[in-house]
Amino acid sequence: MTGIGSKASRKVPTRAKNKAAASIALLMDGIGSAARAAARQLAETPTAAKNEALRAAARALIEDRHAILAANAEDLKAAPGLAKAMLDRLMLDDGRVRAMARAIEEVAALPDPVGAVIADWTRPNGLRIQRVRVPIGVIGLIFESRPNVAADAGALCLKAGNACILRGGSESFRSVGAIVAALRRGLAAAKVPEAAIQMVPTADRAAVGRMLTMTEFIDVIVPRGGKSLIERVTAESRVPLFKHLEGLCHTYVDGAANPIKARAIVLNAKMRRTGICGATETLLVDRHKYRELLGPILDDLFGAGCEVRGDADVCALDKRAKPAASEDWDTEYLDAIIAVRIVDGVAGAIAHIRAHGSAHTDAIVSEDPVATEAFLAKVDSAIVMVNASTQFADGGEFGMGAEIGISTDKLHARGPVGVEQLTSFKYVVRGTGQCRP
Amino acid sequence: MTGIGSKASRKVPTRAKNKAAASIALLMDGIGSAARAAARQLAETPTAAKNEALRAAARALIEDRHAILAANAEDLKAAPGLAKAMLDRLMLDDGRVRAMARAIEEVAALPDPVGAVIADWTRPNGLRIQRVRVPIGVIGLIFESRPNVAADAGALCLKAGNACILRGGSESFRSVGAIVAALRRGLAAAKVPEAAIQMVPTADRAAVGRMLTMTEFIDVIVPRGGKSLIERVTAESRVPLFKHLEGLCHTYVDGAANPIKARAIVLNAKMRRTGICGATETLLVDRHKYRELLGPILDDLFGAGCEVRGDADVCALDKRAKPAASEDWDTEYLDAIIAVRIVDGVAGAIAHIRAHGSAHTDAIVSEDPVATEAFLAKVDSAIVMVNASTQFADGGEFGMGAEIGISTDKLHARGPVGVEQLTSFKYVVRGTGQCRP
Repeated sequence: MTGIGSKASRKVPTRAKNKAAASIALLMDGIGSAARAAARQLAETPTAAKNEALRAAARALIEDRHAILAANAEDLKAAPGLAKAMLDRLMLDDGRVRAMARAIEEVAALPDPVGAVIADWTRPNGLRIQRVRVPIGVIGLIFESRPNVAADAGALCLKAGNACILRGGSESFRSVGAIVAALRRGLAAAKVPEAAIQMVPTADRAAVGRMLTMTEFIDVIVPRGGKSLIERVTAESRVPLFKHLEGLCHTYVDGAANPIKARAIVLNAKMRRTGICGATETLLVDRHKYRELLGPILDDLFGAGCEVRGDADVCALDKRAKPAASEDWDTEYLDAIIAVRIVDGVAGAIAHIRAHGSAHTDAIVSEDPVATEAFLAKVDSAIVMVNASTQFADGGEFGMGAEIGISTDKLHARGPVGVEQLTSFKYVVRGTGQCRP
Repeated sequence: MTGIGSKASRKVPTRAKNKAAASIALLMDGIGSAARAAARQLAETPTAAKNEALRAAARALIEDRHAILAANAEDLKAAPGLAKAMLDRLMLDDGRVRAMARAIEEVAALPDPVGAVIADWTRPNGLRIQRVRVPIGVIGLIFESRPNVAADAGALCLKAGNACILRGGSESFRSVGAIVAALRRGLAAAKVPEAAIQMVPTADRAAVGRMLTMTEFIDVIVPRGGKSLIERVTAESRVPLFKHLEGLCHTYVDGAANPIKARAIVLNAKMRRTGICGATETLLVDRHKYRELLGPILDDLFGAGCEVRGDADVCALDKRAKPAASEDWDTEYLDAIIAVRIVDGVAGAIAHIRAHGSAHTDAIVSEDPVATEAFLAKVDSAIVMVNASTQFADGGEFGMGAEIGISTDKLHARGPVGVEQLTSFKYVVRGTGQCRP
């Protein structure tokens, strides 16, 4: 009976809890309906006015930089338990604030996706049909540690005519607050509704729970952060998501690879920056040629300070390699560690990627068109590459401008999520009195 | 304590219930993994083979028509309680089976969306990036009464390279079973995996519950049916949906309307077929001219046997009109009934549609470009029309070929959902050894 009893008591919150939950719901509904109203205005705001608002927001960031850095110092002081990497992500300085402002100016310079006619045709009965880009509406952003996400995401959403609701981690609460205050001062100066960019003004986790069910006020949520954040959001959200769970990216070096290209690509794909989602985590090498190809690649990796976890063949070839455990094939290290496995040609590589990949970005290094075309066709990832570093998986590198993230889902947005992916469309039909027979 | 006790007992199902639930889960997982495997094969099946399979399926339907009609007769016999309209939807005859086969042949004749290069560009560093259409994967279909949906949806999904899992209503269980058996015989003859089209082989409602959480096996669910079905699916589904809740479509007759066009369009939009989602349910008329414009329109509607529910002004103008209640502005009649309201110009029409519409299809009748452009820009529906009947809201009428439904959501598919909307895409990147600086 204890079990049932305790379950029941968890189901009957105290009056105080009830009151807190009700006040969070009220708060969030207020934010949601303000966002909805702002989104309606933004949908009709001309490009020039949106760009002017973005530039004013960038200026306000620079003007308010002392307040932003002071808020950031308080966040840093309040978070002594954070790991060094987390503290580095949280930390702002003059250069980082200026970089945020520059990033907003770059978004202002992007073409406006809203109003673009994507398709245009006329039916035999004279009806003219156009598919026209429109904003999605209200975007929710749930993110961790890096406070600059607030500025980047706010700017991208606004450019695409969307209002956004930002919810950062509790560790960056003051920093995000100061950044959002500056952005909104800019919007107000340019006469764009301030509610276009709102921040959830409480660190209470119940606010996230409410966001995830606010289907009447939020059209899409973009979660950005570690695997546990994404998993929680995915499990609980009733609002559609643009997300990637992880970037477990592979580089496969085929027997027909150019060995010089293979060396350069693998080193870059793993080590250029180890903490980004497009970094290669697993290297697959063709059994037919691994004795020739793998040695110099491993020399480069060890030379750059990378730990290598290999299968039996790899460990036999190079004593510096540690033996890989089965979970290594499923681990996104985000660190200077690489798993290396010998596979039976391109078919073996495809089978490994299907079993262990995260459908983010996977590459083949090969000069054999049969192998490369098989890889491109059969690997069902958002991005598939031939003879290039997986670290190119990035909206900016793709020429799409800034991105709010990379989607590994297959609906609406797949791959880099930039301003275009933050829009929907509608059909505009012009007739001259047509009736349907 | 009674309440808690009964809750607890509901949480501890009997052994028999547990066993039944486990066997449904096992059954559905088997169907799901077979669909996933079939989808992988379909993704690589050439256009000609898919088209041959569709034509073979169409032939098999005709060959098996006696078995299909016999199964349908049993369904009809088992459903004496159904309303006449429902029985008509359920009933098959020789002509309807032949129409199903013809519809499949039309899908075979559509262009194959898979493999199409949607965008193609080269970066300054020489990387060539292509956006290529790929199938989505596995589509779930949950539908009511009309058994032909099984054939239409199965064919569309297959054309787009997707496997599908069909779940009809219990009233059409035998009919759908016979149709699916015929389709699969056709697929097998053409050497396409039979599991490309599967039917849930039980009428147990727990199977629907399982489908709605099978995110590992189903990529999208398309619910087709009445509002209560869509509401249940929307509330419970963890799988993304392509859906429309209802088609509460409006036609607004502006003061600057051509009166002859207005008469023809309103009559067609309401009365051509009253049971389809693109039928107009509410007529809005500009206050400035309603005395001139509305009389002949109402004459036409009454002449066609339509009931009119009007606001006070409408009832004062025409004694045949019944007074509308406030819920009439929010009702999708799907019947020969129309709600009629006088509004203050195009701004009044937009405000009414924002408050009461379902974002499906809305039309303005006007010769004034200022009014029409305002309407097109400010009404945020999947389809907005000028001087045309809302009954044109249909994939076939749009020239997109057959459709699996019309989406009123804003992500991925909006408006008619045809073969193109049943695809995703991936980025294919071709390099010559590029590394990211």
